[in-house]
Amino acid sequence: MTKARGIPVVVSGPSGVGKGTVIALMRQRCPDLVLSVSMTTRPPRPGESHGKDYFFVSTQRFEEAIQKDELVEWARVYAHYYGTPKSFLETICSQGQDVILDIDVQGAAAIRSLYPEGILIYVLPPSLEELRRRLFSRAKGEGDDLELRLAQARREFRFLGIYDYLVINDDAETASEQLCHIIMAARLRRERAEPLLIAHGILGPA
Amino acid sequence: MTKARGIPVVVSGPSGVGKGTVIALMRQRCPDLVLSVSMTTRPPRPGESHGKDYFFVSTQRFEEAIQKDELVEWARVYAHYYGTPKSFLETICSQGQDVILDIDVQGAAAIRSLYPEGILIYVLPPSLEELRRRLFSRAKGEGDDLELRLAQARREFRFLGIYDYLVINDDAETASEQLCHIIMAARLRRERAEPLLIAHGILGPA
Repeated sequence: MTKARGIPVVVSGPSGVGKGTVIALMRQRCPDLVLSVSMTTRPPRPGESHGKDYFFVSTQRFEEAIQKDELVEWARVYAHYYGTPKSFLETICSQGQDVILDIDVQGAAAIRSLYPEGILIYVLPPSLEELRRRLFSRAKGEGDDLELRLAQARREFRFLGIYDYLVINDDAETASEQLCHIIMAARLRRERAEPLLIAHGILGPA
Repeated sequence: MTKARGIPVVVSGPSGVGKGTVIALMRQRCPDLVLSVSMTTRPPRPGESHGKDYFFVSTQRFEEAIQKDELVEWARVYAHYYGTPKSFLETICSQGQDVILDIDVQGAAAIRSLYPEGILIYVLPPSLEELRRRLFSRAKGEGDDLELRLAQARREFRFLGIYDYLVINDDAETASEQLCHIIMAARLRRERAEPLLIAHGILGPA
């Protein structure tokens, strides 16, 4: 059967919520999902490769991409740029594959504008105390900017109104299963399924 | 955790598509779903009980229910009335349980008006030829009103625009799994999850 176009699936969430683990488990459950590859000016870490983990570029090239409107969304995090190349996203979607984007609230808003059919999911901690615990254990006891990250999370929660779905990451297996439910359901939406049904003669003139 | 309100989940589909089997399998997968109990003027068959299979009432009582606006939707099928009592649906939803309604396109439209948060799902056959085969085998070779039912199905397909989701019943197990994905995803929608998160202090003033 001809495939419908794929859609972008944004997964956002505060620092420390465990989004990386949830996304990794989700990809085991739904192996046909593609993870978006970002463009970045951060140097590659050992084992990372160009085009698989990131598109590693110079600051000059990144700023050119911004100016030429080649990025769906981008952000500067500390010293480095990160962004999603339009061409990459468009290629994957046109191949009928859904793309997971691990980006922030502003990136989510940009995706909504360009891809109204995309899905925006926000991953929440079971409580702010639990988020504090997770950030603390991740910071290996240093906890220097812990309060800053918590304040940032609370600030971000005020923009949840743009998201379609909220998933609580209490247990990462359950949360990843819930993300799969959301994506599987999205594939059954009428707007997405109808053109295929017409193309294949299941639906047609009465 | 306090439960959110339940929602009505309409499952429609043409005669012969195998909706009954799919709904039965879905209830095994999601045992917390409640099947709507209709009011009818049809006499009980052996083994059917009042309040479990149907609310069995007289024609006079049914027509009174119509006049007093006690039904969300109703239809006359051949010699008998069938309808969904508002009070039943409201009670189950207010208890936080999702209710499956096996009703037609007109019923689905009525649910959409009264419960905008409800989900409307239409179950399709993999092809019209397959629907014909299923209707023929069910009619035990008589096939008297087969063409009429097929024409009715094609007519109904013109009203699919009100449905949120389309599910193809090629394999009943797969179709029932897809219905569960849709219902599980609906429980994670922001509009539904947010009030609970606020009530439990996960979301709150920044």
